[in-house]
Amino acid sequence: MNHDHIDYDAFFAEKISELKDQGNYREFAELARHAGNYPHARRYTGSGEEIGDVAIWCSNDYLGMGQNAAVLKAMTDAIKAYGAGAGGTRNISGTSHPVVTLERELADLHGKEAALVFTSGYISNEATLSTLAQVLPNCHVYSDALNHASMIQGIRHSRATKTIFKHNDPADLERLLREADPSVPKLVAFESVYSMDGDIAPIKEICDVAELYGAMTYLDEVHAVGLYGPRGGGIAEQEGLMDRLTVIEGTLAKAFGIMGGYISGSAVLIDVVRSFAPGFIFTTALPPAIAAGALASVRHLKESNAERIRHQDRAARCKRELKKVGLPVMDSESHIVPVLVGDPVRCKEASDLLLSEYGIYIQPINYPTVPKGTERLRITPSPLHDDVMMDRLVTSLAEVWQRLGLDLVS
Amino acid sequence: MNHDHIDYDAFFAEKISELKDQGNYREFAELARHAGNYPHARRYTGSGEEIGDVAIWCSNDYLGMGQNAAVLKAMTDAIKAYGAGAGGTRNISGTSHPVVTLERELADLHGKEAALVFTSGYISNEATLSTLAQVLPNCHVYSDALNHASMIQGIRHSRATKTIFKHNDPADLERLLREADPSVPKLVAFESVYSMDGDIAPIKEICDVAELYGAMTYLDEVHAVGLYGPRGGGIAEQEGLMDRLTVIEGTLAKAFGIMGGYISGSAVLIDVVRSFAPGFIFTTALPPAIAAGALASVRHLKESNAERIRHQDRAARCKRELKKVGLPVMDSESHIVPVLVGDPVRCKEASDLLLSEYGIYIQPINYPTVPKGTERLRITPSPLHDDVMMDRLVTSLAEVWQRLGLDLVS
Repeated sequence: MNHDHIDYDAFFAEKISELKDQGNYREFAELARHAGNYPHARRYTGSGEEIGDVAIWCSNDYLGMGQNAAVLKAMTDAIKAYGAGAGGTRNISGTSHPVVTLERELADLHGKEAALVFTSGYISNEATLSTLAQVLPNCHVYSDALNHASMIQGIRHSRATKTIFKHNDPADLERLLREADPSVPKLVAFESVYSMDGDIAPIKEICDVAELYGAMTYLDEVHAVGLYGPRGGGIAEQEGLMDRLTVIEGTLAKAFGIMGGYISGSAVLIDVVRSFAPGFIFTTALPPAIAAGALASVRHLKESNAERIRHQDRAARCKRELKKVGLPVMDSESHIVPVLVGDPVRCKEASDLLLSEYGIYIQPINYPTVPKGTERLRITPSPLHDDVMMDRLVTSLAEVWQRLGLDLVS
Repeated sequence: MNHDHIDYDAFFAEKISELKDQGNYREFAELARHAGNYPHARRYTGSGEEIGDVAIWCSNDYLGMGQNAAVLKAMTDAIKAYGAGAGGTRNISGTSHPVVTLERELADLHGKEAALVFTSGYISNEATLSTLAQVLPNCHVYSDALNHASMIQGIRHSRATKTIFKHNDPADLERLLREADPSVPKLVAFESVYSMDGDIAPIKEICDVAELYGAMTYLDEVHAVGLYGPRGGGIAEQEGLMDRLTVIEGTLAKAFGIMGGYISGSAVLIDVVRSFAPGFIFTTALPPAIAAGALASVRHLKESNAERIRHQDRAARCKRELKKVGLPVMDSESHIVPVLVGDPVRCKEASDLLLSEYGIYIQPINYPTVPKGTERLRITPSPLHDDVMMDRLVTSLAEVWQRLGLDLVS
C-alpha cells in the first residue's frame, strides 16, 4: 500500500511551463470599461492596482451597444422589477417573461417560427449540434475546416460521423455529398463571418449544394447578427437567404453588447433541442435583466442603421490607413481587421508595447485561437473610434513595427 | 439525382410525440418575479397574457438573495459604471475588474489559492472535468452514481476511462481503487448535496479513501455554497474539510441568487483549466454587473448567518408539517423537500392543479432529471416562505393528493 503518490500539481506546472516556452501562455488584461466613454477603460495590475487608461481596439462589442442608453435602462429597470437572477433552470421556475419575449423577437429577426436562448453562444453551438447529430440516426455532419471551437466540440460530443470540407468551398462540399448515401441524415455546419480572418461564406452556394443532396444547414452568424442586413439579421438577411437555412445561430454578447447565445429554426426543431439538450436543460436560465437588455438591443438595431453604416466606414478607413503605412493587413471582407505577425512571442511583444507605452489595447491572438504561424493582432474598429484615435493607432502600430523589426509590405 | 429527401421536421415531430406519450414533455411556466415580494410572481399564458399571481415553491434562489438590496444595488451601480456586457472572451478584452475581484473572493471562501469563474455551473463542471481528465495521461475517473448531468458530460467528453461507484458509498469506492494501477492518475468526482433527493455525501470518508490511493478529489457544492458552513463555504466548510479537496466547484446562480459557476483549487490547477478548457477560453466573459452582484452576495453571506438559520428552520418545519398530514416526503438530510409521486403523468397533473386552482407553483420533476418511477414534486422553502404560506401549501397539497387519489403514508 505504501506506493508513491502522483504529484498532480507538479504535472500541471510542467504543462504551464511548456505553454510559456512556446510563447502561448495567456495573460489577461484586467479592465474596467467606462460606460459612456467606451472604448476607453481603466487598466489594473495583477494585484488589483489601477495603472491608467487605455483605448480598447479588440473588443467584440462591435457597435458599442454595451453602453447604449436604452439597453442600460432596460437592464436596470428589469433588476428593479424582477430582481437579480432567474432562480432556476428554464424548466424549474427560471422561464422569465423577458426571456420568452426575447425568444419571440429573435425568431422574428431571422424569419423563423421559433428561437431558443442559451447562456452563451458557445453552449448554443455545442448543445444544438451535439443534440441534432445525436438524435438523428446515423447523422453525418459536414463541417467547414475553419469552424469555431464550440461547433467542433458540439459535433465531437455527438459522436456522429464528421467530414470536414475545405473552408468556404461549396465544390468540395458537393464532391463529398455526391459520394454519400442519400438515405442518411446530413447536416452542413458553417459560419457566415469567420472571426479571425474576417472572410465571408458563400452562403447561397453552400445552401444550393446542401439542398440538392437533402442536407440540413446550420449557420453560425455570431460575428454578423446586429451588424449586417437591413434589420441586423446577419449576412443571410443581407443576401435574402434566411429561409434557405435550417438553423441560424447567433449571440447576444457581441454586436448586441451583453451575453448569451441563441438558435432560430422551425418550431419542432427548436422543441427537440429544448427537450433533449443537456446543456440547455441542466443550467440556470439567463437573468431577466440580461434578457431585457438584449431585447432592447435587438429592437434598437432592427430599427437603426446608423451604427451599421458608421461601423463599416470605420473598418474600411482603418484597413486603408494601415495599408498606407505598409502594415501587413490580412485580406478581410468584413469589419474585422487582422494584422499579421506570424510568431507568438513577437505578437505578444507588440501587444505589450502598445499597452504599456501607447495606451492601446489589442490582445495578441495566438494558438489555439488561430493556427500556429498565423499569430496576429486583430483590430475591431467600432462606431466610437474616431479619426483622431484611429490616426494615433496607425502611427503607434507603425512605430512598434519598426522598433521590433517586424516585416512591412512594400 | 432525383432521390427523395429526408423530412427532418417529420422526424423531429415524431420525437416530440414520443415524449408526450411518455408524459415526459416539458412545459415551462412563464413568470415575472416581483423583486421585493419574492416568492410571489406574475404568471403568463403561452401567448404572453398575464393570468394572475403565484407563490413560487420550487426555486433554487434558496435564500431569496435574488432580491437582496445590496446585490441589486451592486448590479445597477456596475451597469452605470461599466455598461452592459464584458465585450469579449476573458482573453480578448473581457476580463473585468469585478470578475477578477470575485475570483479572489471565491478563492478565499474555500480556502484555496485561486478560483476561476465560468458562465454557468454546468460549464464549470463540463469544462473542468473534461480538461483535467484529458490533460492527465491515462486518467481514470471515479464518478458517484448520482452525479449531475454536467459532471457526466464533462467526464464523457474527456474520453477518459470512467468507473461509477455506488452513490455515497466510500467502501465501494475503496474496492474499486484497490484494484487500480497505482501509477495511473485518478480523479474522484462527487457532490456534497444531491439536489433531487437532498442527501449529503460522506465527504470525509471519500477523501480518506481518495488520499489513501493517491486520487484527486472534485467536489460539486452547487446546492450547498452560501447555505452551509459559518461563511457559506458549503458542507466541506461546515465539516472542516475544505483542505482535503483538490477542487471545490460552486455556483453563483442558486444561494447567491444570480448566474455563473466557478471552481477553486491550487493556483497551478486553475491555471491549467484557464489555459486549456475550450468551454472557458472560447466564450464571452460574464458581464461586470453579474460579477459585481455575485461579489456582493458572496460577501453578504460570508458575514451573515441569519439567512442560513431561517432557511434550515423553514425546511425542517415544511418536512414536519407535510409528514403530519401523511404526504410522502422523501428522506432528505438537507433543505430540499421532495414529495414522491412516482409517475410522470400524475406528477404533472398534481403540479397543474396546484398552479391553476391554488396559485402554488411547484414544477413536476420527471425523467431525465430523476429516474423513471421516482417522479416527484420538489419543494424548496426559503427564509421568505412564512408560516401562513406554508400552512396553505400543506393544506393545498393534501387536497390535491386526495382529489387525484395519490398515495398517502399512514
